[in-house]
This record gives sequence, C-alpha cells and structure tokens, in this order.
Amino acid sequence: MFKKVLIANRGEIALRIIRTCKEMGIKTVAVYSTADAESLHVRFADEAVCIGPPPSSESYLKMSNIMAAAEITNADAIHPGYGFLSENSKFSKMCAEHDIKFIGASPEMIDRMGDKASAKATMKAAGVPCVPGSDGVIKDFEECKKIALETGYPVMLKATAGGGGKGMRAVWKEEDLKKAWDSARQEAAASFGNDGMYMEKLIEEPRHIEIQIVGDSYGKACHLSERDCSIQRRHQKLTEETPSPFMTKPLRKKMGEAAVKAAEFIKYEGAGTIEFLVDKHKNFYFMEMNTRIQVEHPITEQVIDFDLIQEQILVAAGVPISGKNYTPKLHSIECRINAEDPYNDFRPSPGRITTLHSPGGHGVRLDTHVYADYVIPPHYDSMIAKLITTAQTREEAINKMKRALDEFVIEGIKTTIPFHRQLMDHPDYLAGNYTTKFMEDFKMNQE
Amino acid sequence: MFKKVLIANRGEIALRIIRTCKEMGIKTVAVYSTADAESLHVRFADEAVCIGPPPSSESYLKMSNIMAAAEITNADAIHPGYGFLSENSKFSKMCAEHDIKFIGASPEMIDRMGDKASAKATMKAAGVPCVPGSDGVIKDFEECKKIALETGYPVMLKATAGGGGKGMRAVWKEEDLKKAWDSARQEAAASFGNDGMYMEKLIEEPRHIEIQIVGDSYGKACHLSERDCSIQRRHQKLTEETPSPFMTKPLRKKMGEAAVKAAEFIKYEGAGTIEFLVDKHKNFYFMEMNTRIQVEHPITEQVIDFDLIQEQILVAAGVPISGKNYTPKLHSIECRINAEDPYNDFRPSPGRITTLHSPGGHGVRLDTHVYADYVIPPHYDSMIAKLITTAQTREEAINKMKRALDEFVIEGIKTTIPFHRQLMDHPDYLAGNYTTKFMEDFKMNQE
Repeated sequence: MFKKVLIANRGEIALRIIRTCKEMGIKTVAVYSTADAESLHVRFADEAVCIGPPPSSESYLKMSNIMAAAEITNADAIHPGYGFLSENSKFSKMCAEHDIKFIGASPEMIDRMGDKASAKATMKAAGVPCVPGSDGVIKDFEECKKIALETGYPVMLKATAGGGGKGMRAVWKEEDLKKAWDSARQEAAASFGNDGMYMEKLIEEPRHIEIQIVGDSYGKACHLSERDCSIQRRHQKLTEETPSPFMTKPLRKKMGEAAVKAAEFIKYEGAGTIEFLVDKHKNFYFMEMNTRIQVEHPITEQVIDFDLIQEQILVAAGVPISGKNYTPKLHSIECRINAEDPYNDFRPSPGRITTLHSPGGHGVRLDTHVYADYVIPPHYDSMIAKLITTAQTREEAINKMKRALDEFVIEGIKTTIPFHRQLMDHPDYLAGNYTTKFMEDFKMNQE
Repeated sequence: MFKKVLIANRGEIALRIIRTCKEMGIKTVAVYSTADAESLHVRFADEAVCIGPPPSSESYLKMSNIMAAAEITNADAIHPGYGFLSENSKFSKMCAEHDIKFIGASPEMIDRMGDKASAKATMKAAGVPCVPGSDGVIKDFEECKKIALETGYPVMLKATAGGGGKGMRAVWKEEDLKKAWDSARQEAAASFGNDGMYMEKLIEEPRHIEIQIVGDSYGKACHLSERDCSIQRRHQKLTEETPSPFMTKPLRKKMGEAAVKAAEFIKYEGAGTIEFLVDKHKNFYFMEMNTRIQVEHPITEQVIDFDLIQEQILVAAGVPISGKNYTPKLHSIECRINAEDPYNDFRPSPGRITTLHSPGGHGVRLDTHVYADYVIPPHYDSMIAKLITTAQTREEAINKMKRALDEFVIEGIKTTIPFHRQLMDHPDYLAGNYTTKFMEDFKMNQE
C-alpha cells in the first residue's frame, strides 16, 4: 500500500481524499496556492506545500511545481481529484516517469477517452450505443435522405460550422426533410459562410444518466448503478440523485452491462463514469467517459455502503475488485451548495462566511471544506459544500433534504441553498419528471 | 397520522424528534425552560412554549405545565424522548386521560417493567433467562449451600442491606462457601447492623449487551439486533457499538429470540430495549427493560437503514410493523461527547462554546443541539453531541471515528473528545476485549 499520497487539488475533494487516506493509515501531503493557505485541506493534511499564487495556471495546474512537491515530500502516489490535472495525460505520464503512482487513468486511456471522436469510435467498437447519424459532412440531399432513414426519425440537422442554434433543424418525418435541408443550408451559409451539414438522431426529452464503473488492473470491471444528473444549468450539474426516477430494472441492466462491457473492452483501471443520454423511449446513447472521480460520487457511496476513494486507492495499489455489480437499496440525493446568488442569475458570491451552522442527524451527510470565518477566494469554482441525504425512498430523501436545507445556515455570502429549497418543492421535480432542459424553464420565486 | 406532536424534552433528542416529524410532515411543538430559550430545538420547532425555570422539577418534569402546553397548541401526541417523563406511568396515564397519544409505553407497561421485581418475574414467566440465585433472604447456611448448588458456581453472596462492596463475597467452589458465608455476614452485621444475605450467580467478565425491539399494537414484535454498551463509567454509557465484537451468530439468534419472545409476551408497543448481562461463557441474563427510545439508538439506525423515531411514531399511530428481524450489515460506533473534563475526573464543564467545527464526510453522522456561541446551561445532562461513524468493518468504523474526532473542534469548554480519541487507540478496545469493568482500570494519558 502507498505510504504517502499527495493530493493535487483543493476544496472539498482535497479534504475528502485526505479523510480516506487518514482512515487507511496513509500519510497525506496537501498542495495549496497562496489564496488557499487557510483552507481545511491544508490544516488536515500531514504536510502541506505551497505551489504558487492564483490563478490555477500558476499553481494547481503547474505540473512541475506539484511534481517538485511530491519529490520533496517523498510521496509515492498522487491523487488528482476532479478537474485540474485529473484528466491530463501529460501529468499522468509525468507521474509514471517519476515513479509516482497516478491514482487515475493511464496517459493512453485519458487520450483515448478524452478525444471525442476516438472515444466514440472506441465505444462503437465495444458495442456501446452512440448517437447515430452521419459520419461527418453530408454530401448531398440524396445522402441526407438515406442517412435519415438509417438513423430513424426524428433527426437533427446541424451546421458543421454551427453554434447558437443557427443552421439547426429538427425533422420529424421524411416529407419535411427537403425543406429543412434547404433552409438550414441557406442559414448556415449566411451565418458562417459554410453550408456543410451533418446529422444526428434527435434525442427526445433527454436525460443525463451516468453509470459509475470500477475496473481493476486484472481486466475486471463492475458497475455501481446510475446517477441522474439531468438538472443542469449551462452544463453545470446542480443536483444529482440515485436511483434515477426514470430508471427501470431492465434499463439499468442494459446500461450497466454496456458500461461494464465498455470498461472491460478498454481494460479500464480505477473509478470512471460513462455518461449517457437517455431519451423518452429509454434508448440510451454514449456521451462521454470521465476517467476520474466525480463531484457527485457520494450519492453512489450512500446507496452501496462503500467508499469510492478507498476503492480508487486500492485499485491503484493493485488490489483486485470483487467484480460484483451493485443495485441501490436506498435513495440518495446531492445538492451542490455554491457561493452564488440564485436570485441574481447565479452570479458568484465569494467573500467571508460570517456564520455557519451545519445540518446533521439521520441520513444527512455534508462534505465541505468551509468553516465560520473562512474567506471564499474569488479564483476558483464556487462550490462550497455538498449536502447529501439518504433514505429508504425518494420521497423520504427529498423530505430529508428539505429539512436539512432549512437547518443549513451560511451567512456573509449568497448561496444556492434557496434554489435547492425551491427545487425540492417543484412539482416536476417531485414527480421525477425532468430532463436536461429543466432549468431552461425554471424561475426562482422571489424571497 | 398525528397532525402535531409536542416534544416533552430538550437537547439533541428534542431536535432529533423534531427532524423526523418535519420529514414526515407533522407539525412540532417544543417546550423549554427559561435556561433553554436559545436552544436549537426551540428554533427548529413550529411552535415553542416556555414551561418554567430550571431545575427540571420546575419545567421538564412539571407534568401539568407540559399538558397545558399540549392543550394550548392543540398537539395530538407527545413524544417524551428519553429521561425526564419518558418512563413515568403517571404522565403516560395523564396523556391518555387528555386524549393525547403518548408516543411511548402504556402506564401499565411502564409500571410492570419499571419495577425491578415485577420486571424480573415477568421475564421469568416469558422464559427469558434472569440472573439465577436466591429468592430474597437466605435462611441459613444449609439453604445457602443448596441454592449455590442449584445456581451453579461461581456465585456472589450479597448483603441485603449492602452497598459499596461491604458484605459481598465471590465464591468459586463449595469448599470456600462456609468461610465466605460467615465472614460476609459478620461484615454485613458490623457495617449495616443487618446480616441478611442473598445470592446471585456471579457474572464473569460481564458485558452490557442490549437488544433493540419494536412491537406494534397487533401483538407483533421484531428485534433490530444488539448494541454493546459495556464501556461505562459509574453506570453512564460512554460509547456504544453494533454489532458487539463479542457477538456470535448463534448468540444473536438466541438473544434476539428471547427479546422478541419477551416483547410479544407482554404485548409491547413501540420501541424498547431489553438489556442483558452476558458472561464470558456467552450466557445471557435479563437486566432491565427500557420502555423508551435510547440515547444510543442511532447506531442501530445506521446499520439497518431506517429511522427508529419514525418507527415509534408509526407504531403509535397504529401502523403494523413488518415483523422482520434485522442483522447488521455494517458496523457503527457512537461516542457521546460530553461537556466534561476527562483530565479532571470527568468534571462537568458548562459554559459558552466559542468555536465549533463539525466533522463530516463519508460515514459520519452528528446529532447535536449545540452551535457556535451556544451557552451550555449547568442544569442538565452534560451530553452535547453524539458522533456516529459507520463503515463496512469495525476496524474501518474505528479509523473513521479517529479522524472524525480529530476534525471535531469545540472551544470554550472542556469535552470528552480527548477521552474518546484515547479510547480508540486502547489495545483492549481495538481488540474488542472489554467488559463493564473496563473504565475501572482506564487512565487518561496526559495531554
């Protein structure tokens, strides 16, 4: 087992990793920017090394400084957390070259799954469903018609040079295809000076449902069921839950098997997530793979009763996994508490926390790096806490979340607590009836 | 279901009950003494009624005031928590007379199980093993010899007027009985002016292991396995765990069956605990029954995944139980954090909490009613928090407890955090090798 792990991250995830290392009897090294000197991850680690000033490019992304910190402190492994260098193949390679175990994916794996085209090709080869459509630019209308038939209606025509919805047309039946093709091309030409078009199947009422997988160094993988992350704002997840209210036993079986097949096909080592779009007919399509731990991993931990960071460390140390797939026995929800003003377009709200009172009790978990008098620096991600509730049923988990949000007091800054509190009362959320479009229509009730 | 529950208690258990009521959509009424006006249970309840000044006899034990508060607020049920009026048959009766549901045992049940002799007689009738020995005072040495033989060696001779170890003798074999009988009687006569003696089987290396039971109003009961509460100081439990490291599958089966048999024999309704002494040979003997929720109930909740306060409320409302017995799938430990100085004979340390930082993360639960700037009043029990850790194995739960205790910062008063931290490093505790005598030999290492 590793003797000393350097955590190349900050905030709650740095603390999260330090906690598990402590529990495993592994020494820890924190690295920190000058803006984070007062951070809990610095206080709770056995050693701490300052690696530069903000912004991150001068510290948390500065590979040479982190590597130097690891060498100075004799760390034999580095945990990158999420974000920052967690999916940086150069860093993963650099670790290997310095004979320091990178607790994450190999450089090859990161490159393979980090590149969209290569990831999609790999998944196709593994037999995992990908969003069907054209392979690149469509030659002419004849080909367009043929591909639309193969793909199956509804389809989406998209300008290769597109953006902001320009040159995009949803087509629901063949008789409308010609008109859409012509008008989309015209619009694309006018907007981008390029009328190249490609086609994708239109995903109706899409849900973002991801499967947590773990693979070991012996080629074995298992899945730990899904997380529904459809509640997003500008591609930022706000709250997640497991099981997904949209999930059925047969769909979980199919998605889980696809994820395990994909992981074993690429001989994936460590914890990873395969993100799928699921349409209203319960067809699912590969979106991307995250070759790291994710922010929302705690809800999975709550329903399977084990520690995923520990699992990452064990796998990195060469311990084989049991290979057992897990089905949630409980229901768990995470709310990401951000230092943002939900009444003001989620504008960041850094500053000093003057009062902090944490919720607690049965079924409540709080992962946070902040404390009373802590000053949230303006340089980083605005997430300051993850509040997780777990209960026997979805309804109970929601009720628990409501009362935990009601108890949670953070003064001195604005937070997204009021947003989550209103979300937990929203009839569509309560009904489990939401897609990735949910936030487009969501409006805060005024205070 | 009840519309409004009055919580006739204070501190963490009042908050605990309010939380569950909120989650169930039940309105809550807090009662408080003038010393508790700033308490969280007052803030978090829907309504709050002041019922008098400290000490408790003038408020939390003042039945008429509490009943008036219930009448004024139109509460249709009262939850008494633990301590105070929770096992007061007069209060239970008064509730019934006022047509307010007492969420606890009936007056008859409280009387039957609250009186030691009647409880023992009831358990004997139910076929639950009780500590064998004489029925009252032993007539003469002939009878003494006869009873010792029936009871089985080793036995304990005890002065009926005894106390402080005077007139007490452990006897391991028959040839030593006469000498012990004579000397114990002499000592008792000299100490108390009364040489009456009785006899009990000597419980070798006793453990305090209790079985949590739940019974419904249809005569059905189930057990939720055991809690080991052997780590006690002057009969005050300090830390508890489930499963007991001393437990075996066959012993759990036997003890569980005995507890369920007892509960069904007396048609017990609600949550209750049957406390047993278990000797080194894994014989178990009924000690007493608690007809209320217990301080240490959260560790059971952690390993069975449901809410015992909710279960109490459901049963009180006439909902039948599933009747399924539970076996722990995880390991959970509770440390009672008291405002006491463990370096100074656990002397109470009330006062203002100047700084509070709560531990959190995976497998950590905290039940507390205190917050930064809260002033602990000197009038009540010194327990200010219950820290609970849960993991797959005992070793992991202990390691989690160590790191959670390390993270827990309470400044301004003395607490028992250092005691628990040292306990978690004690070789006998780590080995699970402890009895109710453990604290007699425990010494704090100096800071």
